[in-house]
Amino acid sequence: MKAVVIHAAHDLRVEDRPAELAGPGQVEVAIEAGGICGSDLHYYHHGGFGTVRVREPMILGHEVAGTIKALGEGVSGLAIGDRVAVSPSRPCNACDYCLRGEQNHCLNMRFYGSAMPMPHIQGAFRQRLVAEAWQCHKVADGLSANEAAFAEPFAVTLHAVNRAGALLGKRVLVTGSGPIGALAIIAARAHGAVEIVATDVMDAVLVKAREVGADRTINVATHGEQLDAYSANKGYFDVHFEASGNERAVRSGLEVLRPRGVLVQLGLGGDVSIPQNMVVAKEIEMRGTFRFHEEFALAVDLINRRQVDVKPLLSGIYGLDQALTAFETAGDRSRSMKVQLSF
Amino acid sequence: MKAVVIHAAHDLRVEDRPAELAGPGQVEVAIEAGGICGSDLHYYHHGGFGTVRVREPMILGHEVAGTIKALGEGVSGLAIGDRVAVSPSRPCNACDYCLRGEQNHCLNMRFYGSAMPMPHIQGAFRQRLVAEAWQCHKVADGLSANEAAFAEPFAVTLHAVNRAGALLGKRVLVTGSGPIGALAIIAARAHGAVEIVATDVMDAVLVKAREVGADRTINVATHGEQLDAYSANKGYFDVHFEASGNERAVRSGLEVLRPRGVLVQLGLGGDVSIPQNMVVAKEIEMRGTFRFHEEFALAVDLINRRQVDVKPLLSGIYGLDQALTAFETAGDRSRSMKVQLSF
Amino acid sequence: MKAVVIHAAHDLRVEDRPAELAGPGQVEVAIEAGGICGSDLHYYHHGGFGTVRVREPMILGHEVAGTIKALGEGVSGLAIGDRVAVSPSRPCNACDYCLRGEQNHCLNMRFYGSAMPMPHIQGAFRQRLVAEAWQCHKVADGLSANEAAFAEPFAVTLHAVNRAGALLGKRVLVTGSGPIGALAIIAARAHGAVEIVATDVMDAVLVKAREVGADRTINVATHGEQLDAYSANKGYFDVHFEASGNERAVRSGLEVLRPRGVLVQLGLGGDVSIPQNMVVAKEIEMRGTFRFHEEFALAVDLINRRQVDVKPLLSGIYGLDQALTAFETAGDRSRSMKVQLSF
Amino acid sequence: MKAVVIHAAHDLRVEDRPAELAGPGQVEVAIEAGGICGSDLHYYHHGGFGTVRVREPMILGHEVAGTIKALGEGVSGLAIGDRVAVSPSRPCNACDYCLRGEQNHCLNMRFYGSAMPMPHIQGAFRQRLVAEAWQCHKVADGLSANEAAFAEPFAVTLHAVNRAGALLGKRVLVTGSGPIGALAIIAARAHGAVEIVATDVMDAVLVKAREVGADRTINVATHGEQLDAYSANKGYFDVHFEASGNERAVRSGLEVLRPRGVLVQLGLGGDVSIPQNMVVAKEIEMRGTFRFHEEFALAVDLINRRQVDVKPLLSGIYGLDQALTAFETAGDRSRSMKVQLSF
Repeated sequence: MKAVVIHAAHDLRVEDRPAELAGPGQVEVAIEAGGICGSDLHYYHHGGFGTVRVREPMILGHEVAGTIKALGEGVSGLAIGDRVAVSPSRPCNACDYCLRGEQNHCLNMRFYGSAMPMPHIQGAFRQRLVAEAWQCHKVADGLSANEAAFAEPFAVTLHAVNRAGALLGKRVLVTGSGPIGALAIIAARAHGAVEIVATDVMDAVLVKAREVGADRTINVATHGEQLDAYSANKGYFDVHFEASGNERAVRSGLEVLRPRGVLVQLGLGGDVSIPQNMVVAKEIEMRGTFRFHEEFALAVDLINRRQVDVKPLLSGIYGLDQALTAFETAGDRSRSMKVQLSF
Repeated sequence: MKAVVIHAAHDLRVEDRPAELAGPGQVEVAIEAGGICGSDLHYYHHGGFGTVRVREPMILGHEVAGTIKALGEGVSGLAIGDRVAVSPSRPCNACDYCLRGEQNHCLNMRFYGSAMPMPHIQGAFRQRLVAEAWQCHKVADGLSANEAAFAEPFAVTLHAVNRAGALLGKRVLVTGSGPIGALAIIAARAHGAVEIVATDVMDAVLVKAREVGADRTINVATHGEQLDAYSANKGYFDVHFEASGNERAVRSGLEVLRPRGVLVQLGLGGDVSIPQNMVVAKEIEMRGTFRFHEEFALAVDLINRRQVDVKPLLSGIYGLDQALTAFETAGDRSRSMKVQLSF
Repeated sequence: MKAVVIHAAHDLRVEDRPAELAGPGQVEVAIEAGGICGSDLHYYHHGGFGTVRVREPMILGHEVAGTIKALGEGVSGLAIGDRVAVSPSRPCNACDYCLRGEQNHCLNMRFYGSAMPMPHIQGAFRQRLVAEAWQCHKVADGLSANEAAFAEPFAVTLHAVNRAGALLGKRVLVTGSGPIGALAIIAARAHGAVEIVATDVMDAVLVKAREVGADRTINVATHGEQLDAYSANKGYFDVHFEASGNERAVRSGLEVLRPRGVLVQLGLGGDVSIPQNMVVAKEIEMRGTFRFHEEFALAVDLINRRQVDVKPLLSGIYGLDQALTAFETAGDRSRSMKVQLSF
Repeated sequence: MKAVVIHAAHDLRVEDRPAELAGPGQVEVAIEAGGICGSDLHYYHHGGFGTVRVREPMILGHEVAGTIKALGEGVSGLAIGDRVAVSPSRPCNACDYCLRGEQNHCLNMRFYGSAMPMPHIQGAFRQRLVAEAWQCHKVADGLSANEAAFAEPFAVTLHAVNRAGALLGKRVLVTGSGPIGALAIIAARAHGAVEIVATDVMDAVLVKAREVGADRTINVATHGEQLDAYSANKGYFDVHFEASGNERAVRSGLEVLRPRGVLVQLGLGGDVSIPQNMVVAKEIEMRGTFRFHEEFALAVDLINRRQVDVKPLLSGIYGLDQALTAFETAGDRSRSMKVQLSF
């Protein structure tokens, strides 16, 4: 079985790994599609992010879908041949956070492809994956594995819109219109947003933002004044989904949010400087959003029912033999939205 | 009629001003007590804060109580001789924010002693104040005007605890234990907080914090490690009231808040740098809180019913002839908590 | 100018009324479409509902749209020839409820066609209506006045889904699939509901429910056991929109709601008997929902943007000379969903 | 070991039962105080309630406190001699409800002294109780076991006030001022309620209500018009805690709640008839509240810290040899508030 393994920054290898057998309650999945995520790219380009570093070889990947090839003992509700999206989130369901329904903060989380704990949690970019049955969500007939592999990043944005509270009739700003920003547009619309303005610094990205539902896009590198105009009368937007991790985007959002507006922070960066007086005087709420829990099932459900369409965001599919090219391409925002591997 | 007027930084004068007559729906109040607030001190020391500058002589003051001396036409429910706390907040009740019940964000707010608009809104440090009847809240028998003059800053902290949501059973951190931090301790307890830890950099201040209800105090200048210990298992506190405006206090709070914890920002500072990744990974909520609306009536009510005791925070009373001394003393945290003027 | 006037139960007349002139801030609208609502039918069939009785002749109607014919002094943002939906809701914007943003509970509400106060509030089933400019919301090009006249009942259901809180990913039951129930289906979907089951006692109505988005329909007169099956494991639905006013529908909803589920009561009936122990043991929330406020603008906006399609619910259009037939037909659920008058 | 066992209605026996040994993670507690609850009285008087019937002998009781006599293997944080309140709530922590943090709706709950499942869950009115260590909460020095045994019913009311949302500054009505109503008064005050009006049909009970914090009491059997007066201007109270289970109390609360007021239903009755139109027109929220989860620890904490005082509600203590007298007395509201057994 081949797997995509990171050894260090810029040292990505496709290696053979021993196959595993499905134990009780588990299934064996032939992975067919795997989306490359920003965190995968961080491992590839920088060997980690923040204080998290790759300290031993680790299989990357956590956005995967495939077909069930074998069932362990006692598995019901799934059958060989079923096509499934596999959730990378494996909370312990026993710690204090899990027993409050806050599984995304599990103290013992084993999320695929994470170098946070040691030993690292091996990821899902591999030809065969043995997973718990409850991680596997059936994909509707006629849907491609490629679409199904969007379930994970879409779940991230569904969690983000849940964090924002009810969006019905709300005016929404999305800053950073890469894969997560674009999926946030789809999620915000599904949650009832009535008007969505998206920004980025690249026109190619903004074309996609409009294609998936933004009512208006602004290239803030060239037309920042168009965004500034929304600051009249203390601000215009009810909710800001910040998906760039960029300090300038955070600060501009604070300017154009109306009093008691909510800034949901999706993008990861380092330290950012914020104008405390404005947060106070406008009573802004800044809320972090991290991964997801029940939203994975919802993501698959919405994709299955075709209530949303994620296909426009798939910009390239590469075979395992082109894994390096896939990672290089995925990192080039001018050409790529979501790049997937084919196994 | 004498009034306390700021002309420029360090140019504070007690001046004669013409008396006014109570019009329809108004009352004339003989002001007896006026608390000096941090914003008064900013005008005195710096001539303003941020972009707000004193551009014409302005009467300071917005924490006042006194006795009604005359009633305008059509006033009911108040009588000459009634002792009242006077709310400095005068929203227009007609703009979009007011008609959503968000009067503290009124586009046409006329808050006493504010240099934000031009002409400035004159304040309430004067011997006679003509106010709308609805600004005046009756004080219970046996309560001093000095206690009643705490209604305004206490209302600020009641609004802050409302912004935090239900506090019943919550663990609360208060950073910055000056007048606002100390009143936040009282407000948090009144709202059901079960455990309150307060910090400051001065021991004298922390003595008061314990006196008004903090279960534990930490001098973070000398014993910061005691606070750090609360960061185990992703954090301990449910809510953090940040009343110092200090970047270090903000950052330490993010460390010791549990996932989905809420940081309510009361203190005003300039730009502060925050660790975006931690806000995201712990799904922290940072919420600004600004002034108050219906909480003024609640503040008077709670003081009237003696459900709270603000007296320990009154550290000095000065006559008008000692106004300069009062302002100098109020600015010295080692000696003063709340300093009031007597008219 | 002709108007549709109720004098007493079954005494509906098309009468001449003097035309009015648009005063300052007002506009004159030539009404083109007017939807007959359940409350109009109550006045027609029973002369009122509950303790509300028709005590003087009253023009009926509050679901109207038309074209602006004249502008009063000082009106901006509207022009002669604009096609508009007219909100029937005229709160005072000065009472305690209005100043909390709860305008639908205004103590001085003047809602079109209401016999609650005396003199009654005259309605909008008339050829010319003088309204405040702020009541008028522009209709997008290409949209019919008939679609625009759905703004009012759609706003009622948008308010209902707002009352339910965020619906993203929620399982929804709608009981009573007449015009309000059907619009609730549309509104719940727009607010993110992932699965919608609708019930009624007439198959003809359920066909429409599926047409506007119900995933499944159940005729509870003939197949009640299909609904009962959802009570396993303490219940299935997160939210129940009760639009029938029928006691049996309320009670069946309590059975199939999951613990902490929310029952939003839209339908009006008299006294209903509920099983208190079940409300307690499952911690059900029953919430009334009444009219709307900011949701009127949202309704027009969603119709204008074609994010929703209300056309399937229009089952008949009658001229003024057929007003009696229109009212008789509107009351026959086997044949009619929404019946409108044409002026 | 002696235990208090119900065999059928009016067939209560003090019987010998074999002692148990503390297994791993468990402790053996010598029970010292056990409060008689309304559900115990239902088993005694009626052999059950609703469809729940005693079908085999069952030890009653779930409000208990005592002293640890032995520790099972692996228990830490507790020592022999510790005095503890024992939570009767034992959720499975594995079902869907538990993993959402809704343990009080656990599908496999084993709550002491419940005839709901078969075999019945044996209760805690026994001289020695073997419990899980996590059920045991240490009692502060100087506090009696009798006070500690209030933790359970107090937790019920703390959960009820949590269900109501933030109470700071709210006006509260409590109907039914027996043990649960009286504890709801204490809990509402601890949660910030500013004004509490309590009702009952017996003056003796209302004396206690005032003693524990009600601002005003109304005997609705003799002075119902005093309550009716609160219905002016659409109503007065923000929150109504209904602890009587009585239909008249529910209906009167709907009259005097303000629009969007919340009725929290604590009391258990059978079917009650409610005016649907009023629930709709005032947008009332009726919320059931059932048992508790994390509030048990909070109850012990608040009692330990002496932030609340439950002692005034203890009206009698009876030895095991007087168990029948205790049950008879507990059922007589004219003489008893909370009656406890001594073991």
